[in-house]
Amino acid sequence: MTELTTLANGVRVVSQTMPHVETVSLGLHVDTGARLETERTNGVAHLLEHMVFKGTATRSARAIAEEIEDVGGSLNAYTARDMTVFHARLLAEDTALGLDLIADLVRHPRFDADEIEREKAVVLQELGEARDTPDDIVFDHLQAAAYPGQALGRSILGDETSIAAITADDLRDWLAVQYRGGSCIVAAAGKVDHDELVVLSERLFGDLAAGTRPAFVPAAFAPGVVHDRRKFEQAHLTLGASAPGHHHPDYDAVALFVMAAGGGASSRLFQELREERGLAYSVYASTTPYADAGLFSVYLATAKKDAARAWDLAVDVLATTAATLSPAELARAKAQVRAGLLMSLEAPGGWAEFLARQLLAHGRLQTPAELVARIDAVDLDHVRAAAGRLVAGPYAVADVGAAAVRRAA
Amino acid sequence: MTELTTLANGVRVVSQTMPHVETVSLGLHVDTGARLETERTNGVAHLLEHMVFKGTATRSARAIAEEIEDVGGSLNAYTARDMTVFHARLLAEDTALGLDLIADLVRHPRFDADEIEREKAVVLQELGEARDTPDDIVFDHLQAAAYPGQALGRSILGDETSIAAITADDLRDWLAVQYRGGSCIVAAAGKVDHDELVVLSERLFGDLAAGTRPAFVPAAFAPGVVHDRRKFEQAHLTLGASAPGHHHPDYDAVALFVMAAGGGASSRLFQELREERGLAYSVYASTTPYADAGLFSVYLATAKKDAARAWDLAVDVLATTAATLSPAELARAKAQVRAGLLMSLEAPGGWAEFLARQLLAHGRLQTPAELVARIDAVDLDHVRAAAGRLVAGPYAVADVGAAAVRRAA
Repeated sequence: MTELTTLANGVRVVSQTMPHVETVSLGLHVDTGARLETERTNGVAHLLEHMVFKGTATRSARAIAEEIEDVGGSLNAYTARDMTVFHARLLAEDTALGLDLIADLVRHPRFDADEIEREKAVVLQELGEARDTPDDIVFDHLQAAAYPGQALGRSILGDETSIAAITADDLRDWLAVQYRGGSCIVAAAGKVDHDELVVLSERLFGDLAAGTRPAFVPAAFAPGVVHDRRKFEQAHLTLGASAPGHHHPDYDAVALFVMAAGGGASSRLFQELREERGLAYSVYASTTPYADAGLFSVYLATAKKDAARAWDLAVDVLATTAATLSPAELARAKAQVRAGLLMSLEAPGGWAEFLARQLLAHGRLQTPAELVARIDAVDLDHVRAAAGRLVAGPYAVADVGAAAVRRAA
Repeated sequence: MTELTTLANGVRVVSQTMPHVETVSLGLHVDTGARLETERTNGVAHLLEHMVFKGTATRSARAIAEEIEDVGGSLNAYTARDMTVFHARLLAEDTALGLDLIADLVRHPRFDADEIEREKAVVLQELGEARDTPDDIVFDHLQAAAYPGQALGRSILGDETSIAAITADDLRDWLAVQYRGGSCIVAAAGKVDHDELVVLSERLFGDLAAGTRPAFVPAAFAPGVVHDRRKFEQAHLTLGASAPGHHHPDYDAVALFVMAAGGGASSRLFQELREERGLAYSVYASTTPYADAGLFSVYLATAKKDAARAWDLAVDVLATTAATLSPAELARAKAQVRAGLLMSLEAPGGWAEFLARQLLAHGRLQTPAELVARIDAVDLDHVRAAAGRLVAGPYAVADVGAAAVRRAA
């Protein structure tokens, strides 16, 4: 059973009861992220997510880690461009402890000056690790290519300059401006009692300032290019195209196209590049939807000598798929989306995330059955038309470890 | 409910009914892997795992991918040093199709000569991707350092020379010698009917040759050193030590030590290297147990200038933890292991894997409650003594992207 309660200050509390499990997945999902930053404050959302673990008014960093792990639980967090999430996995009897810890983190962080400097060093190490992972950093480059000069185009981690400049006041301002009642969702799934969760949430978040965070600047896609010429064994290539945001009428049609074009082993890209020609081990398509826009992308890693050929072929496969997608391929893509949704809801973590993302994207809950019905209702003409608009380009391009790639696109 | 049936030829069929889910996780777990290879055939277990997807007597590669994805399912496989797994995720009503596909793959592969050459190209791409991922390839280097000149020390993927030399006959021989009744486990969890699973397994695997695969050569740990001097942003450092295998009386004691030393945010390594000093973003300890041996490892990524300091500190933290582990830390490690086990069994994939791994490691099933009781029974003296033996070294060492690191060890 799904239940949703909105507190007086706008905090939404949502839960899914799964009586057959013994645990709870519990998260605070905040409707903010790197997209709300300026060039100067780039990295503040992420540094804040780190800094809240470095101590609160009543708990040291060590005490936070020990309290959750003493009961066998875990506490994690991540920052995206449009979302910041603090998340606990716990035995059901420890639900109150988990929510108390999460609330303490975001309500009463210390922001000690020396701890900020130490944590900036950790973030620089994280940045170094990301740069050492070409199939990770190439997506940062693609964001930069697709959204030049915009918050959506900047790294979530920030860079050396912006990280160094962030102050304790920046962190406090970020919390005060972004973490408002209307921006916060408490989402839980598993062996959870909704009424208890509401009482806990009211006590812990009921005095959070009402309102919502400021609006962001609308995204403007550009067919930019970013080459990272460092030497790697493979050429890691991506292309990006403007795709529908959460509210766009083409959203489901494009999701089905992406599945058919590059979502699995039967997809056109996998069959053409890997199975037929042995040009890549990894090749896939995906989309990252935002409220007002979305970024379609293809990733492939190939031998440097094959980069131009693989690139041209990928662009060709996308165009051909959009033009010739068959009824059988559409039916298969629908089956994959349906089953994927069902499987993602079999463990508490998947359910809690599903609920929070629905509320963040749409401000309301759709049941899994409603989503499936929407997917089922999409027809072939709509998919082909939406895909045709998508593959008409022009594409943004980013690559790592490639020599100059001649491209037909 | 867990049920286990052994067919006349030794194939074991094991299942866990989870009536509250709509799907099934289904796998064929084979008791073989890169550890059974020779230097000449290095990579054959993994190439075989790829090649079975390239076509069977009655299905093309495309047909295999389409049949499973037509019903929204997925089919994957992986090769380890001591295990090869073919795995399907499906709606419950498609269980028979999933097992039929897996059986067809491993019983009737085509091994067309031109498909073998094409798939070797894909494996070389996979190898290139692994080499481009320092926190992945450094563990291959650590295996090489710890088990020089042994099958356990070689890459699962093989290398350019060994991959090029593998023939269709090598693949057929591998299948005939390694994939015997006594080496094969059909494991399923979810909405599954055990009796039906047994009938299906009998029909699909009942005529597999009985017997088991040949014995492997026992592991001999060595404190070797492998430096990969390619340039990366960070120094990626690992150390390895000889650890208990599955049947060793110190197995649980060392598992608890590893959790306390480097298993979570409250662990000594995380607190000392990341929280106290900002020396790393990623730092953790783990073990890889085999039947007769195990490899304990620590991984950390740090700025190159800090590599020597971080290394010395990690070695020091391990020694100190072994000597001074507290009752509170042991209790916490037990809670983490207990809760981790419970959470891993909440989705079908975790249950199926749990059952198969029990049978592969011990030849029998222990219930989660039995495992928890074993963990609970370990006392502090035992953990300290077992950890003391482990950290006495000497350590094997592997690193990527580091300049020559002065080490106290």
